Amino acid sequence: MPDRNRQILLVETPKGKLGTQHFRLAEALLPQPQEGEVLARVRYISLDAANRAWMQGATYRSAVQAGSVMAGGALAEIIESRSPALQPGDLIFADTGWQDYAVLPAWRARKLPPLEPLTHLLSVYGIAGLTAYFGLLRVGKPGPGETVAVSAAAGSVGSLAGQIAKIKGCRAIGIAGGAEKCAWLTGALGFDAAVDYKAGALPKALKAAAPDGIDVYFDNVGGDVLEACLFQMNLRGRIACCGAVSQYDGAPQPHGPRGVPGLIVVKRLTLQGFIVMDYEAERDGAIAELKSWVDAGRLVVQEDIIDGLENTPGALIGLLAGENRGKRMVKVA
Amino acid sequence: MPDRNRQILLVETPKGKLGTQHFRLAEALLPQPQEGEVLARVRYISLDAANRAWMQGATYRSAVQAGSVMAGGALAEIIESRSPALQPGDLIFADTGWQDYAVLPAWRARKLPPLEPLTHLLSVYGIAGLTAYFGLLRVGKPGPGETVAVSAAAGSVGSLAGQIAKIKGCRAIGIAGGAEKCAWLTGALGFDAAVDYKAGALPKALKAAAPDGIDVYFDNVGGDVLEACLFQMNLRGRIACCGAVSQYDGAPQPHGPRGVPGLIVVKRLTLQGFIVMDYEAERDGAIAELKSWVDAGRLVVQEDIIDGLENTPGALIGLLAGENRGKRMVKVA
Repeated sequence: MPDRNRQILLVETPKGKLGTQHFRLAEALLPQPQEGEVLARVRYISLDAANRAWMQGATYRSAVQAGSVMAGGALAEIIESRSPALQPGDLIFADTGWQDYAVLPAWRARKLPPLEPLTHLLSVYGIAGLTAYFGLLRVGKPGPGETVAVSAAAGSVGSLAGQIAKIKGCRAIGIAGGAEKCAWLTGALGFDAAVDYKAGALPKALKAAAPDGIDVYFDNVGGDVLEACLFQMNLRGRIACCGAVSQYDGAPQPHGPRGVPGLIVVKRLTLQGFIVMDYEAERDGAIAELKSWVDAGRLVVQEDIIDGLENTPGALIGLLAGENRGKRMVKVA
Repeated sequence: MPDRNRQILLVETPKGKLGTQHFRLAEALLPQPQEGEVLARVRYISLDAANRAWMQGATYRSAVQAGSVMAGGALAEIIESRSPALQPGDLIFADTGWQDYAVLPAWRARKLPPLEPLTHLLSVYGIAGLTAYFGLLRVGKPGPGETVAVSAAAGSVGSLAGQIAKIKGCRAIGIAGGAEKCAWLTGALGFDAAVDYKAGALPKALKAAAPDGIDVYFDNVGGDVLEACLFQMNLRGRIACCGAVSQYDGAPQPHGPRGVPGLIVVKRLTLQGFIVMDYEAERDGAIAELKSWVDAGRLVVQEDIIDGLENTPGALIGLLAGENRGKRMVKVA
């Protein structure tokens, strides 16, 4: 049993862009689990744009306080259990924070099935896959033949959302940063078209990629991309509001997109925010359907795995800069 | 049979604030109805913020062109008919334009039941009443005990929407301009609270009026009021996007409200645009229910009737400045 635990602390709440100076690697004594608690070894830490949002204030969870262990979900393995709900060797998903080991109440851990590759539990069968699945199918509700646009399309959620749209008989348009990512979307992932938002003239490029307009927009980014999509939406279009990653790192824009609420009224649009926890009751069915697509080779699962706990801050900073393709995670053990 | 027809022309498309100089009273020969057409005498012209929006470009209808008769809905009486669908003496609602008489295809007129007072056909049983009814009940979907906020609450739609919220067991908060309107809302109309947006400190006043937050916001105005409401919305709140009157007259704000999409995601809000025509199939049932409330004295119908076709431009300009209470219309004949 180890008695030392490496931890990455959030040193201060970033005012502008997140940098490595906001983090510090520290070592602490490993606490003993109390009655009802477990000791878990962190295997893979999930990197998500939401990590950054949590630093700014309360969202669907309370804010991460400066001086504490950086919060983050991870795939972990039970080492010691003082709860009948979990046994040593069990795999769990939990907010362990960025550290080698975590002690937490058993009720805060979700037991996961053993499944290979393990990393799929954090990508397609994890929050990313379920977010893509429910956001597209329950919120966006595209019909066959409709045009679905997805932003951050090369990311963990977007890459799956666009492919699910294709599986459901839609035309899928990906919006991503850089020609390379765009080529990957239309090549390996089978998107019908891709738009490079960094190339400028986004409204025009979007119109060319979606000449019949957009019926469903899966929004991961907010900001200018949301604005450009609002203008291309078709009558009775739906926007699934999943995130606003363009606004998380650095000073958020002082205003929202033009066209709110004017275009919403005139086009009778629906914008709906959601969060994967809202669909807990449908989780098992969703995972079964995602697995059937993966097993049939219809869903390409891209993962971006970085080695070493000490590299977690850099991995998040890079993710916010858009350097990843697919689901980024850090292998801790 | 008259052979002269007074008409109000839109002289030029206004760039900024609408003024009387944008209109001109003219006289034209009265055309003869052709096969399938009717000649109607305009009785009451409906004034709506949408009249102003139509000048700026295509919305759910094509833009009003400079030099043509100003468009507008009206209650009119059939004088001559060359269609089996309508008979002389029938009452219709149609986009007659601002003039004494109109010739139009019979299929563009909706036949109305004879009902006293006639003006109710333009207010509570017309577009205003149906917009309030469907927007609140089908889009906002408030449950009993929920808090409903309504902007432009002293206007034709808002004054009814707030009262319907009360009938449905909700707490109704009105947002209006000026202490007098606010006193009227909480007095004669029975709103639980009213907020004067012209008094400043809107977010604070809103919080005081809705200490438990807002569950449903019926948005007639967009802009700063929408922004303030977004910040007070409760989890899973719904915003019925009915109009954006704050943006119609003069230069629209270059951006939308802060909090889009961030607050939509975090609070899982739904913003939905709608237009009364979307609920055509449910129209008769809605009117029957509205009538039952009016007959029982549960729904106060406020009308603001101005006399004379020549006063229509001023009546619209005043409506955009918020000088009316309840449904404004012009009595032509």
